[in-house]
Amino acid sequence: MSADTRTDSPPYLQEGGDFDRDMDYLPDRITRDARRPEHGPDAPTRPVEPGRYHLVAARACPWANRAIIVRRLLGLEDVLSLGLAGPVHDQRSWTFDLDEGGRDPVVGIERLQQAYLARDPDYPKGITVPAMVDIPSGQVVTNDFPWITHDLFHEWQDHHRPGAPDLWPADLRTEMESVMDRVFEDVNNGVYRCGFAGSQEAYDAAYDRLFAALDWLEERLTGQRYLMGDQLTEADVRLFTTLARFDAVYHGHFGCNRTKLTEMPVLWAYARDLFQTPGFGETIDFGQVKEHYYRVHTDLNPSGIVPRGPLVDGWLAPHGREVLGGKPLELD
Amino acid sequence: MSADTRTDSPPYLQEGGDFDRDMDYLPDRITRDARRPEHGPDAPTRPVEPGRYHLVAARACPWANRAIIVRRLLGLEDVLSLGLAGPVHDQRSWTFDLDEGGRDPVVGIERLQQAYLARDPDYPKGITVPAMVDIPSGQVVTNDFPWITHDLFHEWQDHHRPGAPDLWPADLRTEMESVMDRVFEDVNNGVYRCGFAGSQEAYDAAYDRLFAALDWLEERLTGQRYLMGDQLTEADVRLFTTLARFDAVYHGHFGCNRTKLTEMPVLWAYARDLFQTPGFGETIDFGQVKEHYYRVHTDLNPSGIVPRGPLVDGWLAPHGREVLGGKPLELD
Repeated sequence: MSADTRTDSPPYLQEGGDFDRDMDYLPDRITRDARRPEHGPDAPTRPVEPGRYHLVAARACPWANRAIIVRRLLGLEDVLSLGLAGPVHDQRSWTFDLDEGGRDPVVGIERLQQAYLARDPDYPKGITVPAMVDIPSGQVVTNDFPWITHDLFHEWQDHHRPGAPDLWPADLRTEMESVMDRVFEDVNNGVYRCGFAGSQEAYDAAYDRLFAALDWLEERLTGQRYLMGDQLTEADVRLFTTLARFDAVYHGHFGCNRTKLTEMPVLWAYARDLFQTPGFGETIDFGQVKEHYYRVHTDLNPSGIVPRGPLVDGWLAPHGREVLGGKPLELD
Repeated sequence: MSADTRTDSPPYLQEGGDFDRDMDYLPDRITRDARRPEHGPDAPTRPVEPGRYHLVAARACPWANRAIIVRRLLGLEDVLSLGLAGPVHDQRSWTFDLDEGGRDPVVGIERLQQAYLARDPDYPKGITVPAMVDIPSGQVVTNDFPWITHDLFHEWQDHHRPGAPDLWPADLRTEMESVMDRVFEDVNNGVYRCGFAGSQEAYDAAYDRLFAALDWLEERLTGQRYLMGDQLTEADVRLFTTLARFDAVYHGHFGCNRTKLTEMPVLWAYARDLFQTPGFGETIDFGQVKEHYYRVHTDLNPSGIVPRGPLVDGWLAPHGREVLGGKPLELD
């Protein structure tokens, strides 16, 4: 109530029922060639071009976290700059309050909203990360997060580092899409459906789906090192960003409290294995994660007080997953 | 926001600072003899008398839980009846909504408030459990919870069961008071000071005190079975009622989330040992505990949604504390 909160947020709880994520994003794609059929319906394209785009993310956000990890795994740092908004946005926008002078040094804006309004002065939706911003025009090209990481792999291959991992193995694509669909519905978005449920019934159903999916993952990962087998893929990136936030925010703040991640031994070892892989753990800032969720969702946590726990030392403990073999990534 | 909540509660968060529990209770004592000096300042007394008083408690409440346990350990069931209010009180009172017709069968009231108003039509404070009610007059005698359990032991000895435990060993009294003081300040009430803190600073300080005290208890209980050594005492009862609620409500709802109880191995084994002792575990209803905290404190949890976790099967797992010896209680 009285705690210092800089936020004045819209309601997050979904009055009366299920949380339904609005998945209608700015659909533009950044592609290597002229538009190809598989680029999807009606999506205008812009050309891949080193130094032209700015990936705006925030360490707090799991959807943006995917793009930060993939950019690093593929070695795109020199051709695609990264801007990081602070953890606590206000009602209108994520802000660059971590940057000197409160201004993103590449695009020169204080609020990510400015890049959305440059694209569309009447932009009617929420200001989300990740967003790919066209530096010359200062306009957001797309905020369609599943496609952003897809295209960083498929469309930016000319600029990948030598030895960059194959995050989308063609022979696994069909099964991988199926795995990622369930991980998205029941886990990545499932935690939000628990936390933003507007009725006990909606929450109960989301909780059951979430933990059924986590039990399925626990079993799937018992005998193999990564979600798709021996090889780390985009599917692992997508699961990791939720697991990394599980005990810090989803367990308590979103009521995902059957068990902590640390109480699911296979998933916990799997998550530590990834955390200790270059490109993963270095992107996680537990303090920013907690500050974001506990201060922004004022209808879930009116006091704005940020819990001090849990302990996070365990993330660096040995994971023992080497015995499963597989081909762990190495970066330079 | 829209979830079904029957409660319309006063604020619990302490605007701007520390939570300060009002410890000014109705001070009357129920005693065996005429008033003695040690009965404390200005406390009127009523006589111990089998069948005359009704202990009103609620399974949700840790302070009332003490009295339920002590009554059972001492075998006072036949001389002191027990009334149980439901978990979700409204703004004015705990209510007997679990009883047939919503009415306490012994005193014949629907709301505990009625017994407070029978005592004082202008009773100005909150309606709390536990409360000792004089059945003939329908008046609350006292709600001063530390003295209620003290007197059940010291004043009702003529009615204790054969073999009732010595919960207040005279030779340990001084040390025991000191242990109970810290347990009260930092743990029993400490979890409330975390949950009802009105500022980040007040919360942080309460969290540090709480976990420092739990670390102290973890160490103290490493080499001895009970808080005071080989013998179970009132000090164990008082610690148990907070530990039993720790993972269910204090960990998430009150932000006491450095570690779960299940992650503090000595305290967790100690708590299971007590839970599995006759008179303890049978008094715990995790469902009522969660419903109370998550639905009554609407300023902490506006949605009123009650989390489904955590799993509680572990409470019945072997505790291994037998190796420490001691004299565990047995009931008939």
